[in-house]
Amino acid sequence: MPKRRPQPSSHCPIHFALDIFGDAWSLLVVRDLMFKGKSSYGELLASDERISTNILAERLERLEAHGIIRKDVIHTAAARTRYTLTPKGAELMPMLLEIIAWSARYDAKTAAPRGFARRVRTDRDALVRELTAQLHERET
Amino acid sequence: MPKRRPQPSSHCPIHFALDIFGDAWSLLVVRDLMFKGKSSYGELLASDERISTNILAERLERLEAHGIIRKDVIHTAAARTRYTLTPKGAELMPMLLEIIAWSARYDAKTAAPRGFARRVRTDRDALVRELTAQLHERET
Repeated sequence: MPKRRPQPSSHCPIHFALDIFGDAWSLLVVRDLMFKGKSSYGELLASDERISTNILAERLERLEAHGIIRKDVIHTAAARTRYTLTPKGAELMPMLLEIIAWSARYDAKTAAPRGFARRVRTDRDALVRELTAQLHERET
Repeated sequence: MPKRRPQPSSHCPIHFALDIFGDAWSLLVVRDLMFKGKSSYGELLASDERISTNILAERLERLEAHGIIRKDVIHTAAARTRYTLTPKGAELMPMLLEIIAWSARYDAKTAAPRGFARRVRTDRDALVRELTAQLHERET
């Protein structure tokens, strides 16, 4: 059963969002589901940033309680659990693109794809559409 | 003396940014400097979210070490310390606007100004210019 959704302590829009994912690990899980094609617990556990299994389990529950991700059990020969972003979660994409553009500008060793930050600036809507289409394609 | 700037553990652009301000308090300090016209320690301490003085002091040092904010001592009759965003900090604005737009959509009780989220969607560049001009005006 997902955790009870906690009530935010203020309705400032910045605070509302930070109350849900104002934690590096939560947003890295969203990143992996959004951009890295991951969907299983094992894949999410295997990130470069080395999330621990108890933190990952807690953040997945929390993101599910807040309606950012959905958890489905796929009944195949070997039943497996699949995590995907809900529409509410997928709509965090413009925010993540802004984070990428900012970091690409200020991190001399950025791993952001070349030209990506410029596309965020100059061709943002098309980029969001394209990445959203890729996301839906993977999920079906 | 500002803290030594720590090295990020990966150059994933999402991780790079979260390593700096992937913490609710840091981003709430940026919010207060960016949108709420605050500049002194006392003003920053007096937020609705009730940041504690030791957390505030630590986050200010951290944000200064990362070049997000600048600390100036104003030599008037009563010397006072003023915190302002650097250009690197001010460039977090598009990301904060996306956070506001997302929260305004998903928080039924949002405190975001009416119509603000729509402006982020439809008139984003002009909105960033306008808010940036307001920010510079306050700082001079």
